[in-house]
Amino acid sequence: MKTAVVGVTGLVGQKMLRVLQERKFPVEELIPVASERSAGGTVSFRGIDHTIQTLPDALEEAPDLALFSAGGAIAEEGAKPFTEKGTVVIDNSSAWRMDANVPLIVPEVNGDLLQSDHSLIANPNCSTIQLMVALQPLQQKYGIERLVISTYQSVTGSGADAVRQLENERAGQNGERTYPHPIDRNCLPRCDDFQDNDYTKEEMKLINESRKIFDTPDMRITVTAVRVPVEGGHSESVNVALQKDFDL
Amino acid sequence: MKTAVVGVTGLVGQKMLRVLQERKFPVEELIPVASERSAGGTVSFRGIDHTIQTLPDALEEAPDLALFSAGGAIAEEGAKPFTEKGTVVIDNSSAWRMDANVPLIVPEVNGDLLQSDHSLIANPNCSTIQLMVALQPLQQKYGIERLVISTYQSVTGSGADAVRQLENERAGQNGERTYPHPIDRNCLPRCDDFQDNDYTKEEMKLINESRKIFDTPDMRITVTAVRVPVEGGHSESVNVALQKDFDL
Repeated sequence: MKTAVVGVTGLVGQKMLRVLQERKFPVEELIPVASERSAGGTVSFRGIDHTIQTLPDALEEAPDLALFSAGGAIAEEGAKPFTEKGTVVIDNSSAWRMDANVPLIVPEVNGDLLQSDHSLIANPNCSTIQLMVALQPLQQKYGIERLVISTYQSVTGSGADAVRQLENERAGQNGERTYPHPIDRNCLPRCDDFQDNDYTKEEMKLINESRKIFDTPDMRITVTAVRVPVEGGHSESVNVALQKDFDL
Repeated sequence: MKTAVVGVTGLVGQKMLRVLQERKFPVEELIPVASERSAGGTVSFRGIDHTIQTLPDALEEAPDLALFSAGGAIAEEGAKPFTEKGTVVIDNSSAWRMDANVPLIVPEVNGDLLQSDHSLIANPNCSTIQLMVALQPLQQKYGIERLVISTYQSVTGSGADAVRQLENERAGQNGERTYPHPIDRNCLPRCDDFQDNDYTKEEMKLINESRKIFDTPDMRITVTAVRVPVEGGHSESVNVALQKDFDL
């Protein structure tokens, strides 16, 4: 498959390249895509340097598959032009997740929803994905009444700049801050911005995406999402109340 | 007041000495108390060395006040003999907290419960204390329907050995472990042991002590207590559902 990776210079884009390679995904031709600023540079894939292209140039090539990991704004503008050219787009951002016409997929959980005419597919927030994999068997077997979720999210989830902030602080050096406060030897009780209902965006993603994936629009869910001074990992702690089980 | 500090060599005991000094607490005579192993050594208080005594020796002196911070086992055995000699005992351990005859006090919250014939007074778990101070005004004004609590607890709460484990791991050195897993760049989703109901001891303390202090034995409370790689601090994140407010 002719495969574009959009946002190829980011932490996630780089990881996508590595996974495509490790899993011997049938990439016939790789189209690495990034911003104007990065275009013209190269990325290595299967030991060969590939020239980074802009999004309009990649669109011209009408790839079979485009993996988007370039943030919500680019996905919102950029995904549909690809699908109109016959490309299947899988978007990693939040742009399309809650669109009723777009399937929100965790392969192990609801991959069976996919049909051959789905040309735009969203995947959930990283916190939601792992949660769904763990909870799906409980939901199927018992039916979940209520979820109380606490997350302990690594700085890696905020991107390369955030990792740099943590490393700088650990080394006692100043530098630009991704977070408004120090993160080393600290915990920040907010991931992303607060919404009108006093939950953060990250917390509402977990609530709304879980409900969509389980197809349980009224499932009672509360989330506390917190950033912790850890890299590379990501953990969640979940209290699950099953139907007719107990009242928390 | 003739004042004994029991467990004077520990992290908390040392801090007690410092606070007594800083606040110019009217200590007429200090009796520092620790285990047989430490007895005979000295601690400094107001710039003067004081000889550490054993618990039986301290009892002989019948102090006016004894501040216990020596763990549950020592408080369970050791507190009553002091009260029988007329000493007022304030215990920092969990030994007496849930005893119906012992007031469980956070001075700013329910200090008015204290009466002159109370000779044994318990103070709550550190997580409970700060929580009560923050929630008391909400409870008084609105009435709390449900609490969903997530804690992010520093290693300092586990004592000096745990702080040493974190420091060793940060420095890339091996050493004895207080926790069964690494704590640097990690979060441990358990504080203390699991109980039969799958909550940890720390979580059940928060639930039971909060109910006792608010005098609301049926308040719905759920807690997720997690150890994070941070020293000296201590944070909690609480979702509070007020009566007739919303259903989480």
